[in-house]
Amino acid sequence: VNADLLLGVDIGGTKVATMIARPSGQILNHLSTPTDLSSDAATVEGILLTIQAVMDAAQVSPHGLAAIGIGAPGRVHLESGDWFGSTNVLLTSPPVPLVALVEERFGRPTFMENDVKAGTLGEHRFGAGKGLQHIVYLSLGTGIAAGIIVDGKLYRGVGQAGEIGHAPVERNGPLCNCGTHGCLEMMASGASIARRGCAALRAGQDTLIARLAEGNPEAVTGKLVIEAAAQGDCVALDIMEETASYLAMGVLMIFAAYDPQLLVLAGGLAQAGNILLNPLWKALAEQATGRAWAWEDRVALTALGDKAGALGAVALALQNILPEEPA
Amino acid sequence: VNADLLLGVDIGGTKVATMIARPSGQILNHLSTPTDLSSDAATVEGILLTIQAVMDAAQVSPHGLAAIGIGAPGRVHLESGDWFGSTNVLLTSPPVPLVALVEERFGRPTFMENDVKAGTLGEHRFGAGKGLQHIVYLSLGTGIAAGIIVDGKLYRGVGQAGEIGHAPVERNGPLCNCGTHGCLEMMASGASIARRGCAALRAGQDTLIARLAEGNPEAVTGKLVIEAAAQGDCVALDIMEETASYLAMGVLMIFAAYDPQLLVLAGGLAQAGNILLNPLWKALAEQATGRAWAWEDRVALTALGDKAGALGAVALALQNILPEEPA
Repeated sequence: VNADLLLGVDIGGTKVATMIARPSGQILNHLSTPTDLSSDAATVEGILLTIQAVMDAAQVSPHGLAAIGIGAPGRVHLESGDWFGSTNVLLTSPPVPLVALVEERFGRPTFMENDVKAGTLGEHRFGAGKGLQHIVYLSLGTGIAAGIIVDGKLYRGVGQAGEIGHAPVERNGPLCNCGTHGCLEMMASGASIARRGCAALRAGQDTLIARLAEGNPEAVTGKLVIEAAAQGDCVALDIMEETASYLAMGVLMIFAAYDPQLLVLAGGLAQAGNILLNPLWKALAEQATGRAWAWEDRVALTALGDKAGALGAVALALQNILPEEPA
Repeated sequence: VNADLLLGVDIGGTKVATMIARPSGQILNHLSTPTDLSSDAATVEGILLTIQAVMDAAQVSPHGLAAIGIGAPGRVHLESGDWFGSTNVLLTSPPVPLVALVEERFGRPTFMENDVKAGTLGEHRFGAGKGLQHIVYLSLGTGIAAGIIVDGKLYRGVGQAGEIGHAPVERNGPLCNCGTHGCLEMMASGASIARRGCAALRAGQDTLIARLAEGNPEAVTGKLVIEAAAQGDCVALDIMEETASYLAMGVLMIFAAYDPQLLVLAGGLAQAGNILLNPLWKALAEQATGRAWAWEDRVALTALGDKAGALGAVALALQNILPEEPA
């Protein structure tokens, strides 16, 4: 039993991922279970059970943990430890006092942060942004949001800084739930890829997407379009190209706004790898010429893969118990 | 003679504005002279003469000055005090060691900053952003650039943070010198207004702009289009509406990226007042619905008018000799 261990929890719309790790970021055990969305109480109980399960797997008692970190989607209240949920994990009676509930169950100091901000901390401490002072972490999934590290610390503005998924890139674009027309999230998210794939099917285009979706436009997901593109399907490749051309606008916006040393692309869409990066480099070359540096040196995929969220929660816990970064 | 006085210099493409002020921001004397662009040496000598002239007018010797601040367009090197010029004040042999030349002539501690960043400091210390911790200052002129105050201090990123004039807002827009297609500066600057006015004349539209420009498309300036709009000319009003619709995208981008307490609009275009603000409020209402707050509470015109630049240079000097802000 080692009181230096950290437990990280990443709450997602489909799964709750937990891990036990050392302060170095070395992962000892990790475990994920489906998110129970049947009720607020069930969601919380599912999170508590998953925490217990990863401790059981590691044969660690709560006394062996220095702290617990949680990355939660949507709005969190840092002082009270209240969680308000998000469009993916919709709470029926927000807020849920999640930090208090976890501390009550396990008796260890617990810290919660918005999941994208936690992912940013993880990438900064353990991943592609290690040792850098200014990074932007762009989570590309069903939605799009960014975390910003300025001078080594999270930048929040009044509270919503980094919501660049809702910055407009197409003046007359489709209306987002956020109230903005043609925001980056409407034009460049995983959901936008699915929407374009669905439209291609409805338009009767001859594409592998149709076969993968068994002819059902409703069954088209971003992942499925990416799979079709990976197999060389022209319609899917065109969709990735259009998506990347808007993502390039977002990348340019991020560099104009924050001038980070590095922009890290993460989230489900980042797992598309070169299927996303190749058209992105092409769009950046077309839309922005004459840079003194290569985009490949300033934009990188996450180094933490699908562990970025839970490692971010570990980094969050570490930061709260050890405010000083290791040299 | 009072060693608490500050001298501020704002170098512009058309004029050099100087002032002598108290630490409170109270202006004692101000003076501006045309910028001499005939050679690098003439530009510098013109700046030195203008500094001397405002001291003469105030009957102050260099010994009466605590410090001199300079806001210079384009890139400046903070450590060396070198100035590299800009597209508006093009130096033939950059850099010019302006800080060293001013210190040599007047023997007082001198500090230089990019003019937009100096303006941001001025607005934060003396103007609309007084007492706030997070503001964005958007300079709308021939070009567009922003200064950002985070936690009460200028935010620079790697060095170019705030160059949001070169963030794209129109994917297939015209190509800017910066290398980007349809950047905010191409779509919403004073120069873009002039370009649209010029195009209206060439298209033979019946507009007051033609009469104000005496039929010469080359004579159309942003200021002239704004004047025509103020007189109710429909073509000019349409131009302001189109410009404001892109400016609204920039405003939305700034709030998404930085979430400031207040966005301050400054620069020549801000002097259009309601001719700019009315279509801006309209475009914001159309492009972004459902905000919990009113745009009028988060976006304001500069409180310092055409003195913003020189007062910013005063604020820069103050900040360097009195690092602590007055409570």
